[in-house]
Amino acid sequence: MRNVIVTGVPRADAAVVNQLAELGVATVHEAIGRAGYLGPGLRPIQDGVRTGGTAVTALCWPGDNLMIHAAVEQCQAGDLLVVTATSPCTDGMFGELLATSLAARGVRGLVIEAGVRDVAELRAMGFGVWSAAVSAQGTVKETAGSVNVPVSIGGQIVRPGDAIIADDDGVVCVPRALAAATLDAARKREANEADKRAKLASGVLGLDMYKMREPLAAAGLRYID
Amino acid sequence: MRNVIVTGVPRADAAVVNQLAELGVATVHEAIGRAGYLGPGLRPIQDGVRTGGTAVTALCWPGDNLMIHAAVEQCQAGDLLVVTATSPCTDGMFGELLATSLAARGVRGLVIEAGVRDVAELRAMGFGVWSAAVSAQGTVKETAGSVNVPVSIGGQIVRPGDAIIADDDGVVCVPRALAAATLDAARKREANEADKRAKLASGVLGLDMYKMREPLAAAGLRYID
Amino acid sequence: MRNVIVTGVPRADAAVVNQLAELGVATVHEAIGRAGYLGPGLRPIQDGVRTGGTAVTALCWPGDNLMIHAAVEQCQAGDLLVVTATSPCTDGMFGELLATSLAARGVRGLVIEAGVRDVAELRAMGFGVWSAAVSAQGTVKETAGSVNVPVSIGGQIVRPGDAIIADDDGVVCVPRALAAATLDAARKREANEADKRAKLASGVLGLDMYKMREPLAAAGLRYID
Amino acid sequence: MRNVIVTGVPRADAAVVNQLAELGVATVHEAIGRAGYLGPGLRPIQDGVRTGGTAVTALCWPGDNLMIHAAVEQCQAGDLLVVTATSPCTDGMFGELLATSLAARGVRGLVIEAGVRDVAELRAMGFGVWSAAVSAQGTVKETAGSVNVPVSIGGQIVRPGDAIIADDDGVVCVPRALAAATLDAARKREANEADKRAKLASGVLGLDMYKMREPLAAAGLRYID
Amino acid sequence: MRNVIVTGVPRADAAVVNQLAELGVATVHEAIGRAGYLGPGLRPIQDGVRTGGTAVTALCWPGDNLMIHAAVEQCQAGDLLVVTATSPCTDGMFGELLATSLAARGVRGLVIEAGVRDVAELRAMGFGVWSAAVSAQGTVKETAGSVNVPVSIGGQIVRPGDAIIADDDGVVCVPRALAAATLDAARKREANEADKRAKLASGVLGLDMYKMREPLAAAGLRYID
Amino acid sequence: MRNVIVTGVPRADAAVVNQLAELGVATVHEAIGRAGYLGPGLRPIQDGVRTGGTAVTALCWPGDNLMIHAAVEQCQAGDLLVVTATSPCTDGMFGELLATSLAARGVRGLVIEAGVRDVAELRAMGFGVWSAAVSAQGTVKETAGSVNVPVSIGGQIVRPGDAIIADDDGVVCVPRALAAATLDAARKREANEADKRAKLASGVLGLDMYKMREPLAAAGLRYID
Repeated sequence: MRNVIVTGVPRADAAVVNQLAELGVATVHEAIGRAGYLGPGLRPIQDGVRTGGTAVTALCWPGDNLMIHAAVEQCQAGDLLVVTATSPCTDGMFGELLATSLAARGVRGLVIEAGVRDVAELRAMGFGVWSAAVSAQGTVKETAGSVNVPVSIGGQIVRPGDAIIADDDGVVCVPRALAAATLDAARKREANEADKRAKLASGVLGLDMYKMREPLAAAGLRYID
Repeated sequence: MRNVIVTGVPRADAAVVNQLAELGVATVHEAIGRAGYLGPGLRPIQDGVRTGGTAVTALCWPGDNLMIHAAVEQCQAGDLLVVTATSPCTDGMFGELLATSLAARGVRGLVIEAGVRDVAELRAMGFGVWSAAVSAQGTVKETAGSVNVPVSIGGQIVRPGDAIIADDDGVVCVPRALAAATLDAARKREANEADKRAKLASGVLGLDMYKMREPLAAAGLRYID
Repeated sequence: MRNVIVTGVPRADAAVVNQLAELGVATVHEAIGRAGYLGPGLRPIQDGVRTGGTAVTALCWPGDNLMIHAAVEQCQAGDLLVVTATSPCTDGMFGELLATSLAARGVRGLVIEAGVRDVAELRAMGFGVWSAAVSAQGTVKETAGSVNVPVSIGGQIVRPGDAIIADDDGVVCVPRALAAATLDAARKREANEADKRAKLASGVLGLDMYKMREPLAAAGLRYID
Repeated sequence: MRNVIVTGVPRADAAVVNQLAELGVATVHEAIGRAGYLGPGLRPIQDGVRTGGTAVTALCWPGDNLMIHAAVEQCQAGDLLVVTATSPCTDGMFGELLATSLAARGVRGLVIEAGVRDVAELRAMGFGVWSAAVSAQGTVKETAGSVNVPVSIGGQIVRPGDAIIADDDGVVCVPRALAAATLDAARKREANEADKRAKLASGVLGLDMYKMREPLAAAGLRYID
Repeated sequence: MRNVIVTGVPRADAAVVNQLAELGVATVHEAIGRAGYLGPGLRPIQDGVRTGGTAVTALCWPGDNLMIHAAVEQCQAGDLLVVTATSPCTDGMFGELLATSLAARGVRGLVIEAGVRDVAELRAMGFGVWSAAVSAQGTVKETAGSVNVPVSIGGQIVRPGDAIIADDDGVVCVPRALAAATLDAARKREANEADKRAKLASGVLGLDMYKMREPLAAAGLRYID
Repeated sequence: MRNVIVTGVPRADAAVVNQLAELGVATVHEAIGRAGYLGPGLRPIQDGVRTGGTAVTALCWPGDNLMIHAAVEQCQAGDLLVVTATSPCTDGMFGELLATSLAARGVRGLVIEAGVRDVAELRAMGFGVWSAAVSAQGTVKETAGSVNVPVSIGGQIVRPGDAIIADDDGVVCVPRALAAATLDAARKREANEADKRAKLASGVLGLDMYKMREPLAAAGLRYID
């Protein structure tokens, strides 16, 4: 398990990623079979941003952001940088300067299972960030890690080149090979939801719309007064 | 302990609940004797909303929102839906479609000791939500639980029909039988606070206003330079 | 370890504190050698406020805010009140009335490793608060603690009279004796950052700017395709 | 919500409680319909103890064990003391002296959603304790709470007089009115388990014994090589 | 992302796994380059057990142990069952009956990022368990998941057939392809440690043995009196 | 805030420390006025060990144990090594080799607000350890910190040379200047407890022994049936 930087990683199709981004995290997560959600521990530092990109991954040592610098070079327009650490870490591994560097390359945002700082400046720049913490605690640049290896975040596996969608609900990862099929499924779900929404708004109950009354009775549920 | 749905639950008086809501969570919590606060773990997904309603409770299995659907039918105008799970759960049990259904019935909002999703849409709808997490993680609809049984949230007992008040400070539960007396006590406290506020703004110290100097000295507190 | 209130505490120089405040938490934290950050557990209840002041410290019993009242008397214009408890506590130890009292004395804000309430009112007042929790849970006024003794918050030691800087990134403590030297170091860092920012925006990589390529290679990092 | 001590509380039948205790926490929890488990946060301070008793409840202020002293007087032989606080608390509210007092009254053990201390002495005494923490942090005796009111622990409601069973798996609460029926169900389950155990030991698969293959196939599960 | 059971998974070499197990978790973790440790959240329910096996993985729905039953059939002698859930879960997904079934197949133990119950019985059986929680909370058998897919536990990726080593220090995963090379490296480290141990026991300082004095001085470390 | 190693630190009197150790953590904590307890987060890796020593402190970078090596040289017989990190860290910073080195110098044990590994070996050696975690995760030796500076652990300040007492209840720190007075107070408390214990064992109630009935009545507590 040598420290490596993998270059020339194939990316999920950009047009597909952009369309997945429009559909949003919850819809995409359902469309891939309720999978890939990176957990409620990753929160946006801003409200109302919905974006998507292809993953460049960085695996850092706790308290050390050296590999984020190494990862920047691997990023290209349309990517989203995904960072984690080999041990749990809340330090402020990322701030305004790194965001400036990423923005200059056309990177869409940052997903980090650690802390970020300069959040006022990042919000002002419009650079989207989803993080596990906000922390001004600084880091060193001493210990090598890896770039563009598979990483584990929030109980999910993220591989370089996967599609990453992020909005106010958090972050979801769609495996590169499933991106197109997921887009199809997500669109069907979206179309289907408009119809459901109208019914529910008119007063139809989910109990009836989803035909739950019978299984509930079969499960022994009783109504009492 | 069969799974049950209790129907026709008596509610706290609507006029009393509305007036409690105007007074806010902190004042009402003090008025019932520093009790009923559902803890700092329940946070609003929006800023600046203060509301109140009568509790319809739903007890779900973790990762399963079947009983929320069953609870919707028991909700009426002026209610507030209160959801918890039999084990700790952060999944996104509730989203825009369920909110549409509740809004169609005049329900005032949601209190949930689990996760919610579609938060951008919920904020846009103006549907007030207090939750333990934001999560896009979807749930199944497989296992029965109960509706309108007493539940335990944040170390407090919530019974169906109790008055629930929620604002930026969190959520408080007022037992139905105590609602009117609590309103009286809360109004007295409110009136009293205006006077205190004026004194403190003029520079009077709490040490003097609350007559704390003597007990502090009796407790052996010393001033040193 | 008698309970004491220390009076006449020397403060960090007000002009220095004000200038540190302008530079912000992350810059100041780096300038004192990556030290003094009170951790990601203290979050602002408001967005976009940057302030600084000299610490008056209060050490309370859990569930008891008696010593906050005692601390108010020790506060003067330009101070920032710093509160913690002898055991972990999330209760709402501080609210609008205490803020009114502090504002009347020219206190700049509150840092509390416990809960606060009346957050809507505090935001409306423009009184800056950094806290470990928002909670309406009320407290008693029964047990003595201390005012203006050294306290430990977020793994850091805060001494009365230290400079406290707070913004959207959290809170940092600068020891009184180091305040002037820290201001010098912070200004140099600030000046330096403008240059770095311009380079990174133009596409220069951190890998090159910080001369990291050689140490990375020496550490055995390999590039693979 | 006045502070009260409720006396003369009816208890679950002692013989039933003793027999439930022999069956253990997991079996009893299943027998009441997978309910009443006080959560994984309550851990025994000793290994290998299985006991049961009738609940005397104490509701304390955080950092204050006054009501444990008040509760001792309400305890009788065969009881188990159940303590919680109005806010989360890990302080060492209970130690060897209180255990001496309870043991003198024939109390079977302690369940506490807070901390205990003197654990070496408690283990030596053979006084069974299930707690949320071990902590030497001392408490005051200043603020009144209640004894023998319903309390909420680990998301469950415990009422005075309920049957409490505790062993290495944690603690379960059986409502007094359901104790006898639960014992019947638990015995049936126990008898049933011996048969299952023998089958599984002989190599029969749960997949076959519980007839899960068909529903799994119906759910779309595929076997791939 | 269909639910699947992958059969006929290739395993790491049994002889290699057995020898890795003898060397223990800390040594093996270092030997693969400080990687693969499943985190401090997985704790043994027993003391003094050191074991190893090849991973069969099960991915369950929270509160649902259906896929553990399905996984048993895929287990063979020398395996170690590795279980996680699609969302965080502390429920008691595993107990004595499942352990009986696994022991009958020659399975070496269980690693589960969720809860277990019947811990007294499991200890008495001598069936080794490393879990995230002990909990009597029961689960349903309703929702399909997967068996022998890659899973993410404690920030690490575990693939079916990988070598899993577990002892009092926790659990480490060695990728199947790296097992032999890791064994070589671990043995070298082990041999090396005996020499270091003797030196340190004789009073030689790590500062000298690891030649740290120069880099510390270079880093600006000063000795003061 | 340069990185420093402070040498020649004055220690609390050894005879006093040894006698404090005999009295145990809970008694000593009470004797210094319910102060100095390092919190329930530090747990012994062994049962039944009670010890005490004078603090040598080490402040490390997260994921880096370089300064533990530097601290060993500052340790002498009768010391207890106290380690923390500049950010929260659970990595296994300490194991058998470092314990061998410390034992060779007569050090009494380790208190660490981070992880340890080789716990089976440490228990076998009889080297007492109190830690925040058990973790096999290895650390680097790259970044300088400090030795024998004041550190903050569990909300308490520990200064080099302070008396540290540790047993099954956790760890307490007695400031060097207060050690002798604390020993006097602790002995009085101890003597006093024997009398209380006898009374409670004979059935006298704490309510009467501590004269709590009157204040409880004055607080408005009511007895109801």
